[in-house]
Amino acid sequence: MKFLGISGSLRKASNNTGLLRAAQQNLPAGVTMEIADLSEVPFFNSDLTERPASVERLFKQMAEADAFVLACPEYNYSLAPALKNAIDWASRFPDNTLLAGKACAIVSSGGGMGGARSQYHFRQVCVYVDLHPLNKPEVFAKSFSDSFDTYGNLVDQKVIALLAEQMATLKKWAQKLSPN
Amino acid sequence: MKFLGISGSLRKASNNTGLLRAAQQNLPAGVTMEIADLSEVPFFNSDLTERPASVERLFKQMAEADAFVLACPEYNYSLAPALKNAIDWASRFPDNTLLAGKACAIVSSGGGMGGARSQYHFRQVCVYVDLHPLNKPEVFAKSFSDSFDTYGNLVDQKVIALLAEQMATLKKWAQKLSPN
Amino acid sequence: MKFLGISGSLRKASNNTGLLRAAQQNLPAGVTMEIADLSEVPFFNSDLTERPASVERLFKQMAEADAFVLACPEYNYSLAPALKNAIDWASRFPDNTLLAGKACAIVSSGGGMGGARSQYHFRQVCVYVDLHPLNKPEVFAKSFSDSFDTYGNLVDQKVIALLAEQMATLKKWAQKLSPN
Amino acid sequence: MKFLGISGSLRKASNNTGLLRAAQQNLPAGVTMEIADLSEVPFFNSDLTERPASVERLFKQMAEADAFVLACPEYNYSLAPALKNAIDWASRFPDNTLLAGKACAIVSSGGGMGGARSQYHFRQVCVYVDLHPLNKPEVFAKSFSDSFDTYGNLVDQKVIALLAEQMATLKKWAQKLSPN
Repeated sequence: MKFLGISGSLRKASNNTGLLRAAQQNLPAGVTMEIADLSEVPFFNSDLTERPASVERLFKQMAEADAFVLACPEYNYSLAPALKNAIDWASRFPDNTLLAGKACAIVSSGGGMGGARSQYHFRQVCVYVDLHPLNKPEVFAKSFSDSFDTYGNLVDQKVIALLAEQMATLKKWAQKLSPN
Repeated sequence: MKFLGISGSLRKASNNTGLLRAAQQNLPAGVTMEIADLSEVPFFNSDLTERPASVERLFKQMAEADAFVLACPEYNYSLAPALKNAIDWASRFPDNTLLAGKACAIVSSGGGMGGARSQYHFRQVCVYVDLHPLNKPEVFAKSFSDSFDTYGNLVDQKVIALLAEQMATLKKWAQKLSPN
Repeated sequence: MKFLGISGSLRKASNNTGLLRAAQQNLPAGVTMEIADLSEVPFFNSDLTERPASVERLFKQMAEADAFVLACPEYNYSLAPALKNAIDWASRFPDNTLLAGKACAIVSSGGGMGGARSQYHFRQVCVYVDLHPLNKPEVFAKSFSDSFDTYGNLVDQKVIALLAEQMATLKKWAQKLSPN
Repeated sequence: MKFLGISGSLRKASNNTGLLRAAQQNLPAGVTMEIADLSEVPFFNSDLTERPASVERLFKQMAEADAFVLACPEYNYSLAPALKNAIDWASRFPDNTLLAGKACAIVSSGGGMGGARSQYHFRQVCVYVDLHPLNKPEVFAKSFSDSFDTYGNLVDQKVIALLAEQMATLKKWAQKLSPN
């Protein structure tokens, strides 16, 4: 089974992207996980007549993914544009086959509520694009100075354990939702 | 009094941007309105060490604006990344002076619910960045083929009248909120 | 398989409750459906030391239900208190076994957006109480005078067909989510 | 100037109602505040032909209020039915004069996120009923055992100071919004 991680933050030392790396290092047996690179993906614009190479690469990874792990930072009480934009691109794929019916897990890190306000907006997006997010466990990682190192690597063992539990739950959820 | 229009759609013939042009042509006395150009504004990324020229231009227009008219298309049941990204950039300005305490009106066009799901997410953004959106009238323009021409110009007289009413209400609301 | 219908409207001729009756008359093979009576269910209050008989009856129906059909009217852009209150009561049941992991479908009728704003708030409730709503089809029935009769009976054949499709989808979704 | 406090919790020792009492004890000069009693207010039902006495009393207090302080507990990630129901009743008053154009402040107490998820849903209600909630300060009081006593009285001095600041801000906001 393949998971694809997508992060809404573009900065190199992002804690949100760090959550994806930590997930990647704590996968259940039989699962592999790549992390998408959104740094070159432009804003979706239906005037564009050709698909950029960065979008083609993203689509290839999405097509191969059985489930998604979405790092969903909160900017100003809502979604990070880079993550939303990746989903907007994917939603234009014929018959929505990159997304439709697939399982996903949502994670975020932040001050205040750990990104919660953004996650709930993302769940509404899932309705339309037909993703099925896990209900539980939810992962809201506070961006405390002893939770992440300066490179954005997660070092808080409790959050690491929660992520491992979430990844194991995602595997089961994806199996349950599988058409086969 | 100066209004600044910002559209979340980047396509040339966008109906959402067309709503801003229609608003511009139906302003109350004593108000002028510019429309921002987001086509060159990159994704916000705190790794960037210099502010791009496109962002500087946007900030100058925002600083001069007494109120905003925000065209808020609905993509996949939530916000258009380009609009959210413009607000995210602005929110990083020192002391949030580009936005804090200002009045705004929200408009959108779309199928289904005319962009409503995106507007309600945008209202949550307003809480954090301290914008004060009008409660009423709300403008949800259905993207019917006889409402807009092929260039995205609004031709539906009822919606034009509603926009004119909204702009008049925005003027009064901005006056009420003015610190002076 | 058993569905339980719960309506957020208490009025006798409610269109929202009418949607539940129409669903009941258009079930897939092998499914039966009851409709709960909330008329005597009091506001949840943790000071109450005994469970009212009306709540006991509701809990019995919920325990037997494999899936829920929730009629979710929109009052002032959000949830109807009677429906939310029924879920709040149920969520206090030990280990959340009345709700946890079950499938549900959401329907509504109304002016404006047919109840959509309420439905999206209800979906956030589902995250916590661990219900799994269908992504599609969504049912937003406009309360046109030729869609419902004066008793709240649905007579619009298109909406009836959509409800039948939703009930068939709910059956499959509940089977997929079943622990067995 | 008169504030009216309304709490979504019906239990006697509610921390949410305790926030209202603390607000009442920390009002700015020239402001008085009553707290409404919702214990007898029934579910709104348009079949009812007479207005209950409890609703008449609530309406009288609402009519006299210049602004509202709304204690908005979070039940299952959304609104408390008793608060929503009070607003639903009020919204049926002719021409919406009990609510339209008035200022309000929102407070809540809870575990997890201190009631935040409920507050954002309530803000959407405000759009329709034309209330103008403060953007800042937001008050999310964690229900820690040393924040409230066993009667629900707020004893956390930081939260008390924040409430006092919010009440002072509400007074200014209500003055700004006043039609006179």
